[in-house]
Amino acid sequence: MDAKRALEDTKGDMDKAKDLLREKGLAAADKRTDRAQTEGAIGSYLHSQSGRPVIGVLVALGSETDFVAKSEDFQAMANDLAMHVAAAQPQWVSVEDVPSDVVDKEKELIGAAARNEGKPDNIIEKIVEGRIRSFYQDNVLMEQTYVRSDKFEGTVGEMVKHMAATMGENISVNNFSRVAVGEVSAE
Amino acid sequence: MDAKRALEDTKGDMDKAKDLLREKGLAAADKRTDRAQTEGAIGSYLHSQSGRPVIGVLVALGSETDFVAKSEDFQAMANDLAMHVAAAQPQWVSVEDVPSDVVDKEKELIGAAARNEGKPDNIIEKIVEGRIRSFYQDNVLMEQTYVRSDKFEGTVGEMVKHMAATMGENISVNNFSRVAVGEVSAE
Repeated sequence: MDAKRALEDTKGDMDKAKDLLREKGLAAADKRTDRAQTEGAIGSYLHSQSGRPVIGVLVALGSETDFVAKSEDFQAMANDLAMHVAAAQPQWVSVEDVPSDVVDKEKELIGAAARNEGKPDNIIEKIVEGRIRSFYQDNVLMEQTYVRSDKFEGTVGEMVKHMAATMGENISVNNFSRVAVGEVSAE
Repeated sequence: MDAKRALEDTKGDMDKAKDLLREKGLAAADKRTDRAQTEGAIGSYLHSQSGRPVIGVLVALGSETDFVAKSEDFQAMANDLAMHVAAAQPQWVSVEDVPSDVVDKEKELIGAAARNEGKPDNIIEKIVEGRIRSFYQDNVLMEQTYVRSDKFEGTVGEMVKHMAATMGENISVNNFSRVAVGEVSAE
């Protein structure tokens, strides 16, 4: 085996090792969504109407290194996510953040409606399951379809994972905030 | 009474009526801090460090008319308030927003500490009162001393009232949000 060949093999192993580390990183990432990441950037978006900002959104996008946090792509994604939140109005970052009493109440309402329609129990269970999935798709950032389909087709969660894979480190939305004036509240 | 005079009288009455309405409006305003106002603007501030925004603040400043909301002074104040929030880190907008269990727990802690020091009951009451006032001054936006004393000397609440008087209509902070990355949480 000549030196060049050995180098190529090593390079192949390095790539494999990187892939493995990336896989492990992504797997571990699922377990630590609650942990505040030490690095990251704030994405922001202001929507103006009649000469003044009426909707504002902030998104805290966490990364593992300041190298990634400083990059243009990372900050652009943080701002894109803020624009998404302005339009799609999610209530929570991930499914785990939805309070269990909210889920229970939704399930109860859906179940009661299905029972009133005379549906059998085994069907009701499936209906509840399906509707809860759409509830998440409507209200949970990670489950929402990303509004700028020209930039990425899929859910926000898939987009963040794609970015994490590209950047080679754990990236996640720590939290977000949407503040508006002049909107009639739902109560 | 000639027509011109009648018109002037009517004008005088109109002004009085307006003043009365304004007074009532300001009095009523105290009761409706929770209500989303129909007009206003979003103030924002981003604090950057090492090449990316690490703190973001949004402030929803409510007004009664879009005329006021569109004005440069109003929007400048909204942005000034956002900068204040970034620095002073309030937890709530007004004293009424502090959950009663938080106040109760604070009072309990202060009272217990004073009793441990062997203070008499009538003194303890005064100590608790004074310390709760400082708790509000530390954590409630309206009670905080405005950080830009070169622009306004006094509390944020006084500044907002001053602005309301200048603009001639009810102005209030509906809510605010502060989002940061890389800050170690207090738990």
